[in-house]
Amino acid sequence: MLDLDLAIRGGTVVTASDTIRCDIGVKDGKVALLAGSITEAARTIDASGLIVMPGGIDSHVHLDQPSGPDIVMADGFESGTRSAAAGGNTTVIPFAMQIKGTSLRACVTDYHKKAEGKAYIDYGFHLVVSDPTPTVLNQELPALFADGCTSFKVFMTYDDLVLSDRQLLEVFEVARREQALVMVHCEGYDNIRFLTERLEAAGKTAPYYHGPSRPQVIEREATHRAISHAELLDVPMMVVHVSGREAMEQIRWARQRGLKVYAETCPQYITLVEDDMKGLNMDMSGAKYVCSPPPRDRDSHAAIWEGLQQGIFQTFSSDHCPFYYDSPKGKLAEKGRTSFRWVPNGIPGVETRMPILWSEGVAKGRISMNEFVALTSTNHAKLYGLYPKKGTIAVGSDADIVLWDPNRKETIRQEILHHGSDYTPWEGFQVTGYPVMTIARGRTIVEEGKVLGEPGFGGFLARDKSPYAVPKGA
Amino acid sequence: MLDLDLAIRGGTVVTASDTIRCDIGVKDGKVALLAGSITEAARTIDASGLIVMPGGIDSHVHLDQPSGPDIVMADGFESGTRSAAAGGNTTVIPFAMQIKGTSLRACVTDYHKKAEGKAYIDYGFHLVVSDPTPTVLNQELPALFADGCTSFKVFMTYDDLVLSDRQLLEVFEVARREQALVMVHCEGYDNIRFLTERLEAAGKTAPYYHGPSRPQVIEREATHRAISHAELLDVPMMVVHVSGREAMEQIRWARQRGLKVYAETCPQYITLVEDDMKGLNMDMSGAKYVCSPPPRDRDSHAAIWEGLQQGIFQTFSSDHCPFYYDSPKGKLAEKGRTSFRWVPNGIPGVETRMPILWSEGVAKGRISMNEFVALTSTNHAKLYGLYPKKGTIAVGSDADIVLWDPNRKETIRQEILHHGSDYTPWEGFQVTGYPVMTIARGRTIVEEGKVLGEPGFGGFLARDKSPYAVPKGA
Amino acid sequence: MLDLDLAIRGGTVVTASDTIRCDIGVKDGKVALLAGSITEAARTIDASGLIVMPGGIDSHVHLDQPSGPDIVMADGFESGTRSAAAGGNTTVIPFAMQIKGTSLRACVTDYHKKAEGKAYIDYGFHLVVSDPTPTVLNQELPALFADGCTSFKVFMTYDDLVLSDRQLLEVFEVARREQALVMVHCEGYDNIRFLTERLEAAGKTAPYYHGPSRPQVIEREATHRAISHAELLDVPMMVVHVSGREAMEQIRWARQRGLKVYAETCPQYITLVEDDMKGLNMDMSGAKYVCSPPPRDRDSHAAIWEGLQQGIFQTFSSDHCPFYYDSPKGKLAEKGRTSFRWVPNGIPGVETRMPILWSEGVAKGRISMNEFVALTSTNHAKLYGLYPKKGTIAVGSDADIVLWDPNRKETIRQEILHHGSDYTPWEGFQVTGYPVMTIARGRTIVEEGKVLGEPGFGGFLARDKSPYAVPKGA
Amino acid sequence: MLDLDLAIRGGTVVTASDTIRCDIGVKDGKVALLAGSITEAARTIDASGLIVMPGGIDSHVHLDQPSGPDIVMADGFESGTRSAAAGGNTTVIPFAMQIKGTSLRACVTDYHKKAEGKAYIDYGFHLVVSDPTPTVLNQELPALFADGCTSFKVFMTYDDLVLSDRQLLEVFEVARREQALVMVHCEGYDNIRFLTERLEAAGKTAPYYHGPSRPQVIEREATHRAISHAELLDVPMMVVHVSGREAMEQIRWARQRGLKVYAETCPQYITLVEDDMKGLNMDMSGAKYVCSPPPRDRDSHAAIWEGLQQGIFQTFSSDHCPFYYDSPKGKLAEKGRTSFRWVPNGIPGVETRMPILWSEGVAKGRISMNEFVALTSTNHAKLYGLYPKKGTIAVGSDADIVLWDPNRKETIRQEILHHGSDYTPWEGFQVTGYPVMTIARGRTIVEEGKVLGEPGFGGFLARDKSPYAVPKGA
Repeated sequence: MLDLDLAIRGGTVVTASDTIRCDIGVKDGKVALLAGSITEAARTIDASGLIVMPGGIDSHVHLDQPSGPDIVMADGFESGTRSAAAGGNTTVIPFAMQIKGTSLRACVTDYHKKAEGKAYIDYGFHLVVSDPTPTVLNQELPALFADGCTSFKVFMTYDDLVLSDRQLLEVFEVARREQALVMVHCEGYDNIRFLTERLEAAGKTAPYYHGPSRPQVIEREATHRAISHAELLDVPMMVVHVSGREAMEQIRWARQRGLKVYAETCPQYITLVEDDMKGLNMDMSGAKYVCSPPPRDRDSHAAIWEGLQQGIFQTFSSDHCPFYYDSPKGKLAEKGRTSFRWVPNGIPGVETRMPILWSEGVAKGRISMNEFVALTSTNHAKLYGLYPKKGTIAVGSDADIVLWDPNRKETIRQEILHHGSDYTPWEGFQVTGYPVMTIARGRTIVEEGKVLGEPGFGGFLARDKSPYAVPKGA
Repeated sequence: MLDLDLAIRGGTVVTASDTIRCDIGVKDGKVALLAGSITEAARTIDASGLIVMPGGIDSHVHLDQPSGPDIVMADGFESGTRSAAAGGNTTVIPFAMQIKGTSLRACVTDYHKKAEGKAYIDYGFHLVVSDPTPTVLNQELPALFADGCTSFKVFMTYDDLVLSDRQLLEVFEVARREQALVMVHCEGYDNIRFLTERLEAAGKTAPYYHGPSRPQVIEREATHRAISHAELLDVPMMVVHVSGREAMEQIRWARQRGLKVYAETCPQYITLVEDDMKGLNMDMSGAKYVCSPPPRDRDSHAAIWEGLQQGIFQTFSSDHCPFYYDSPKGKLAEKGRTSFRWVPNGIPGVETRMPILWSEGVAKGRISMNEFVALTSTNHAKLYGLYPKKGTIAVGSDADIVLWDPNRKETIRQEILHHGSDYTPWEGFQVTGYPVMTIARGRTIVEEGKVLGEPGFGGFLARDKSPYAVPKGA
Repeated sequence: MLDLDLAIRGGTVVTASDTIRCDIGVKDGKVALLAGSITEAARTIDASGLIVMPGGIDSHVHLDQPSGPDIVMADGFESGTRSAAAGGNTTVIPFAMQIKGTSLRACVTDYHKKAEGKAYIDYGFHLVVSDPTPTVLNQELPALFADGCTSFKVFMTYDDLVLSDRQLLEVFEVARREQALVMVHCEGYDNIRFLTERLEAAGKTAPYYHGPSRPQVIEREATHRAISHAELLDVPMMVVHVSGREAMEQIRWARQRGLKVYAETCPQYITLVEDDMKGLNMDMSGAKYVCSPPPRDRDSHAAIWEGLQQGIFQTFSSDHCPFYYDSPKGKLAEKGRTSFRWVPNGIPGVETRMPILWSEGVAKGRISMNEFVALTSTNHAKLYGLYPKKGTIAVGSDADIVLWDPNRKETIRQEILHHGSDYTPWEGFQVTGYPVMTIARGRTIVEEGKVLGEPGFGGFLARDKSPYAVPKGA
Repeated sequence: MLDLDLAIRGGTVVTASDTIRCDIGVKDGKVALLAGSITEAARTIDASGLIVMPGGIDSHVHLDQPSGPDIVMADGFESGTRSAAAGGNTTVIPFAMQIKGTSLRACVTDYHKKAEGKAYIDYGFHLVVSDPTPTVLNQELPALFADGCTSFKVFMTYDDLVLSDRQLLEVFEVARREQALVMVHCEGYDNIRFLTERLEAAGKTAPYYHGPSRPQVIEREATHRAISHAELLDVPMMVVHVSGREAMEQIRWARQRGLKVYAETCPQYITLVEDDMKGLNMDMSGAKYVCSPPPRDRDSHAAIWEGLQQGIFQTFSSDHCPFYYDSPKGKLAEKGRTSFRWVPNGIPGVETRMPILWSEGVAKGRISMNEFVALTSTNHAKLYGLYPKKGTIAVGSDADIVLWDPNRKETIRQEILHHGSDYTPWEGFQVTGYPVMTIARGRTIVEEGKVLGEPGFGGFLARDKSPYAVPKGA
């Protein structure tokens, strides 16, 4: 009757609130109907015994970013979205990063070029503001917002990105006016610099010292500071990549005060520890785990789980920021060997995000399947203006779907992954539960690890305004 | 193709997580399919411009309960479920209350008789344990649990119902073993008695003094005590009808410790205040507002909203407990005029619950439509073992649906209500948003306030075990 | 000029706020003057190199109490006060315990007889109310209060002592009216009974199971309950022998709400652990450590230190409650061997209290000398109506003084102690800092462990009303 | 026998812990003895009916500070210390303020010159670091510390004083090494600037807008930031002039974590409100109340009282920072009339500090006399390395004493004060309790408001290291 293009049959459909045995009919790349049994369709996929979920949305991904003079990022849009799809994702939102002294508009144009014709799955852009000139604040940000880049990101650290409190306030002010969602990287620049110099002066330069140069108190202070700025201006805010108990408690406190402070965490903060950066006897291989904030400890893992269970965190993202390990343009390029300070911060993870959360969360009974969907897909869509096009399985939504085998046991190894990096920090990590097929707008992109999609299928998503970005007082 | 009995067309379907424009096809009392446009069905309902939600589930309702020698409850199953349906509900879970000295099994049998052939909509029973003899604990509770009464309720006050701490522990122990969900009425018996006697001795007997005889600290203490018992035995627990900030903070504290403490609140705690019990110049009309815990104040309203917004409360119920005001067997029967102590505790509210929460919550921007559905329907179903049969609009679920006009302005008046009571405590209260049609298992029960259903259509629900009743350590 | 009886020369005088190099002149048992150098006095004590502090006041001591049919307490007033003096104390406040069914007045009279002519140092009585009849509440308590027994103690557990919530409220009400300070033993009777029966049913009867029969949650619940009762009636309250983090947090919370909730802790809660009750391979020697609340764990030690440092605790007492271990009338009398339930609860500690706190607190840098004096003496005097007669070294105060060698290292052993028990739970415990001389009203009672005082020198202290017992709203 | 110079007879001596009826004998400017009755002395003061306390120490006083091109401070050391003495003080600790670009050493030398021969009472200097060059950090601060300036102050706001986070850390690092106590003015520079510009742009320039330009959240953020820096480096810290609930809660939180964070508050934060800055119909007279942080509201007054009662605050200082109101070089000099931004921040208060705290605190039953002494004198001495020379009445201490009439009612008016300002913000404020006589080192400085002392009697106090400045980990 509907001339369906595709029927997904026999699976258990799981959304952020429902767990239902039903079939899914797809037409023109969208979910056309849900019914107990759909028998007529051009193509049929048998999902018996599988969980059928909204495809993952990874709202914290770095692709093809300029990373300093001698360093090259290991993933562009092609390999990055391929890896994402292989990990069960159907949408990514990487960052279009302003380079200081240049126009943000120009940078975004450049990112469009980098992405065009490359992506296997759909993508949007968050705007990173590193140089909030009056032109950027008053002209470029509003215009880019109107073009569908409805979230801004600011940094409280990194030489090339750090904003002063004054600049943060100015960006927050624009975000409030435009109702853009502001994402904040909360670590304090001065404190990190101070500790870094002290460590280097003491000859403590191994990759491991990346951790001691950024203890939790520094992340907590910056989190409190950003929350205070947001409270002052009555603007909602997202704290990205929360790593441990200290920052988490600040966010909990803010939420209890009724502030619109949202939060994100990542796989590294429930699985990796600071000591991983020791490598083998404090050798350079510790660099494989260097990311910011750094991995913490078991107590922080427990804290992050509390936060995931109690609704402190809305999103679980990868913070995929891939570098090469064994390459002259990678982690240990040039100066990386001389001090942890020069090791590029970031690890690959877009492909392993969902298996890790499922395995550690759902399979171990810490969270429900519905919570898994909310944390990996639905909440990303709602927070970043993609819902209901993305983030759910419902009539009219894009047929972005992942078929998941909850019982499959897999060992994460570099050789099964599809990213550009030459290593994974989860080498040897065992998971229960793995994606079997990723379907984007009705088309199978990856099946059993085999890439069936094509670069260019994925397109740019002009996102709506986030309903979560409405000021409390509005 | 499916020979649909009914199509609900043109509405916006809202569930606990989704908001979707689609049509609903119903067959054999169940949702058979969801699609963009369903044109072929035996019957069609036009829901254009309306919100289409899962029918309300009111999990805290008192019907046809023995209420003392000279007092009669104003609603049995017939008027009670009629009123519920008129208020947008498709399921109620009243209490089967053990009378001290008698068998719980016999009481349940009696309730089945009271309900049979009377109900317009489906119903289950919570088991009230007032006399936990070894037979009750070891034989009757397990057997009744197996029969589908999978939740137990205990009281920490009331002469005929109060359990000692020892008895509470014994019931909790059985609940843990059976994985029944325990509901607790948290107010301290001794403290209320103590204050009541002091107030009476001081000649303070007007209905108003019901409030001062049960200040928040008494509710808070009992809440902490019940939480502690539950923590001791590692058993999940539901705190019913939380009235104010003090008890709410205890529950928040428990949740942050990782305890499985769930909570419910009611319309009276976001709209009524203690001073309402003053009536006109401390006259007897204050009795219309006497319920337990008593209504509090504006600060507690704010606290309850915090709790609703921050996920402290899972369910929003009516605690419908209807008495007559102007009747020899009602609120002021016999001794009710001599002291607040004898005024039966309870107010009618099953019909006004959903309009009040929608109007105060959704229409005023405090909660989303999805949160409304979770609080009035989905979470009740999940907590009390009715999901996915009830509590959502999904393929395979019962076609329990309410059509809601979000823009309709209504003034609550006794004359538009369908309950047995001769008054409503919300007389004159204005709401925005009202149910237009209530559909139970595909059948229209109430339309525009007109009752189209029939007594006996509603049947007993043998409920599954609550997934929320699994001990933390299990 | 003053005809001094005694000069204490060359020491460092430490009070709750001051640390001063000066001499002390004593006349007629009182401090007559403080000066840099006092050369003329009938007798001179050289305190060079020593700390000169107010004599200890132990406000939680059990002496000569009826302890059940076959058990006898190991200390009466003679050995008990002798041991106290040897441990640096100059005042004790034991309990006059009402026996259910008898007059409290008669019990107090009996205690006066037990004490008269026996005590080496001064003493007062707290009144234990176990049977709050109208006569006790309305006649005996006011009369005994007027006689100088200005503090009441109530129990929330123990078969012979437990009061219902109703009875607690009634005693609190009298305390409020009289402005007596109420002391509360916070552990929940029903919960302990419940766990005890479960443990016994499982064959877990060794002394060790005393601990698991009274976990922290039981103490916490009772603490919250007592605080709530006190808040309801607006009456100040003292929580005695707080054992761990859970109860401590309740008290902190209450204090932050502005409630007048005071708290006491004891040496066992910073040094002993639950596992001590295992004895040697779960043998009977674990009984030596059985007291209530039971010793906890290292985390609770840390919590108690936090409380001592942050002002949560006003007093540090011994809860000296001495029994024999190796005696037919002691810890293992008759039924004690059959179950932990029958092992009398209590350990000897009046003599070791001050050395333990000095050594663990002052010598290890956790608290200052001034805080030590406040915790062991001054605050007891102020809270229980003995100040400024007792609790400080000031002109006009009783010359109750302890000379303390801060550097003396001692190993606590039964053979150096002066109590009646045949063991000490701190056998082998090493301390730094020990009393050298105890002076009561100008008279040397103990010097270098040698008893120089005489029974009968100590007299009954009719205490003033506690300034801390004034209700908040008064 | 002792050839006493002075006897103070018949008073009630109150220290931080004791309240004693005794006489005081003074010789050579020091307390020589305490006794019940001292009859022989060269001079006798009758203190019958009076409270005899340690003279006040005001550790937060600004005198003779450069205040911008066209503004002159209303008090130098002569009038400032005269006013202090008239208010019951015997010691002040003003600030020696580094001017950016100059040597701190030179500034201190300059301050010595300003003070020499001028002061009626003793004084020390806190060092304000506004330009932490390597020379200042590594040479001047250690040398000046050795000279007895053992406390450093840093600012987080003000154009000429603000330090970056990096600079704060560097000063904290030196403080840790030297064990100096760091005082921090916690308000965020960027946020204030941001709001100020927005307010000015909106034409909101009246003195009143000083308040809205510095809301509590800005003070709270800076407080959290400073605490975090201190935690990072494990250095104790004093938060000065805490104005309201928000900052207070941060300090409470820090203390509960075991951090050595001390705090000070001032009379303006328990008596004045933001609305005082409205003057008469938003006129310029609001400038009389402009200080930083600005006065808040009644809720913050309540919070500050909580903090005073619960031990959050160690010191109660004036933050005396006197300007003229009706003068071309005062509050409204030049640009002050054009915008609140140019109104000098500060109010006179050294003379009214003690009467206000006594009246609002002791006379109204909020704090005890002992707490009053601790807050106004003893704790200042202990925190800033002056104890036991200053801050108590004890043998060997300086005879710095104030005689206080607890019953005297006084109305604060400009005409009874001794400061240089031409107004007092407490004009017309009624107090109960007032100083009758101020004695410094045995010499009467002020009696009944009449100045008997002489400039130059007061000398510089080379202070010891603060025992409170020892790092937690030391």
